[in-house]
Amino acid sequence: MKIASIYEPIEQDLTVVEENLKKFTTANLPWMEEPLEHVLDSGGKRIRPALTLLAGKFHNYNLEQLIPIATAIELFHTATLIHDDAVDGSSMRRGKPTVNSRWGDGIAVLLGDYLFSNSAYIFYVVGNLRVMKLFSQTLITISGGQLRQLFSAYDWRQSRQEYYEQIGSKTASLFSASTETGAVLSEAPEEAVEALQTYGHDLGMAFQIVDDILDFIGDEVEMGKPVGSDLLEGTLTLPAILLMENYPQDNPVRELFQKRGDREQVQRIIDMVRNSPIVDECYRIAADFSSQACRAMEGLPDNACRRSLIDLAHYLIERRK
Amino acid sequence: MKIASIYEPIEQDLTVVEENLKKFTTANLPWMEEPLEHVLDSGGKRIRPALTLLAGKFHNYNLEQLIPIATAIELFHTATLIHDDAVDGSSMRRGKPTVNSRWGDGIAVLLGDYLFSNSAYIFYVVGNLRVMKLFSQTLITISGGQLRQLFSAYDWRQSRQEYYEQIGSKTASLFSASTETGAVLSEAPEEAVEALQTYGHDLGMAFQIVDDILDFIGDEVEMGKPVGSDLLEGTLTLPAILLMENYPQDNPVRELFQKRGDREQVQRIIDMVRNSPIVDECYRIAADFSSQACRAMEGLPDNACRRSLIDLAHYLIERRK
Repeated sequence: MKIASIYEPIEQDLTVVEENLKKFTTANLPWMEEPLEHVLDSGGKRIRPALTLLAGKFHNYNLEQLIPIATAIELFHTATLIHDDAVDGSSMRRGKPTVNSRWGDGIAVLLGDYLFSNSAYIFYVVGNLRVMKLFSQTLITISGGQLRQLFSAYDWRQSRQEYYEQIGSKTASLFSASTETGAVLSEAPEEAVEALQTYGHDLGMAFQIVDDILDFIGDEVEMGKPVGSDLLEGTLTLPAILLMENYPQDNPVRELFQKRGDREQVQRIIDMVRNSPIVDECYRIAADFSSQACRAMEGLPDNACRRSLIDLAHYLIERRK
Repeated sequence: MKIASIYEPIEQDLTVVEENLKKFTTANLPWMEEPLEHVLDSGGKRIRPALTLLAGKFHNYNLEQLIPIATAIELFHTATLIHDDAVDGSSMRRGKPTVNSRWGDGIAVLLGDYLFSNSAYIFYVVGNLRVMKLFSQTLITISGGQLRQLFSAYDWRQSRQEYYEQIGSKTASLFSASTETGAVLSEAPEEAVEALQTYGHDLGMAFQIVDDILDFIGDEVEMGKPVGSDLLEGTLTLPAILLMENYPQDNPVRELFQKRGDREQVQRIIDMVRNSPIVDECYRIAADFSSQACRAMEGLPDNACRRSLIDLAHYLIERRK
């Protein structure tokens, strides 16, 4: 299944969001155009704005508010990516150099701030207080979670539960804010808002687990970034946690983190994971979150948007990049 | 004159803001307490929250809104400082190591985001749309201006006018947002809002010019940071621009910027500025902005707050750190 056919019910409207992002690129000062184009014309899947539009189409499909907000959400998401890459010192994303590697950390920090504030301005213009609250809270959650991850880097004593909390704050929070916002702006009844918010959250969990699996088994060319980055940065993800659960006494991740090992050691851990049932187990967990996401929508009308959201849940756990 | 006596009309209320900042430090997760205390218990002058309170006391002194907003403004300002220091690679601020030098750039980026989002959340809680708009615009202005400064680093062909625009966006925008917010929340008539906003803007201009002078002539111990940082980072400030105006043919700043010179060359430029009438000329320009700031308030009632704002304008251009 292709993402384009999943997005079919909102295809035209997502195109308008895309055009808005292009307009934003050129509406700013000329010297900012190149870095803005670099980050906004990135070939990303635009999952979050698509979630907002799809979630917004169950009730009063209020495009006047949904389109600017979906645009703001993509600006917001892009800002978090730029800051993340600077924090992690990542050099590649989606096959292109990151802002920090191309223009330096300083530009990355400020460009992220610039995008955050522009998204905040759009939230203000739309003027829905609940949405404003949601996004200030979401950034508190994301940056707080990332801070915690950074403070606990190279700590090998992290449980599955802590991992779920971590990806809940770093990824699922923005997925759920995206669907919740769509529902709120379409004046959905509170049960529907909750259902779509839960769907978004669980989808985000599944999405991040697959992301973390791909950091072990993905194809570097297809992903456009090196594998093993999480381990190298001292970040414990689900495959590594399951590996440690399987080798409680003598586990290679502990050694890697304690001795700040090198790429060779990372490769050995990757090979161990690849040659074990851990990958399947992680996919099973991701699939559980994905099914849970779909089940949350059981009370919603069985329309094209619900089918798209269900297809998206399947697509995201089958993706290879 | 001491800052405490200038703040006298709002002394108690500023103490509550200070207590709020302390509460914020401990209300978060335990591992975040140390860096938060480091940045929020910094011995700063709390000029921006003081401006909000003083500007808010001319009309309906609405402490229920003014105190959280003044707190949010200090969090917002602290976030900009943390990001600035990371962008500039500064190692000292107010006699203490910066967040980036003590905990690394990653923590600095995320802690700044965390403070920005917490201030945004407070703006949402207070719920005044005009204030929300103002602060999203202010961050657009600040980060956009800083981006421009970074993109034009080491460019010696910058005019006085460009310098004024630069400090207008990086400093005066937040000063004017602070006074405007106080006036708006106290439901001041539009002329009074404008007068206080203009006062804030011009005060910010004077403040930044003095800051830039101190980077040439200040005492490193008193300031708690090294002199000459602007030149070393390729940032052109008023003293350097006046030096270039005085030596259009053979000027040392151009040479420094073109050859990316060292600290010794910076010291030579500092000595040239110190031994010339340039410092006096810069102080005269700062004093002009400061007087202009005070004149903007001529139509406002001659009360203790107006006298404090006038005293503050004098204090800030006479300060030595």
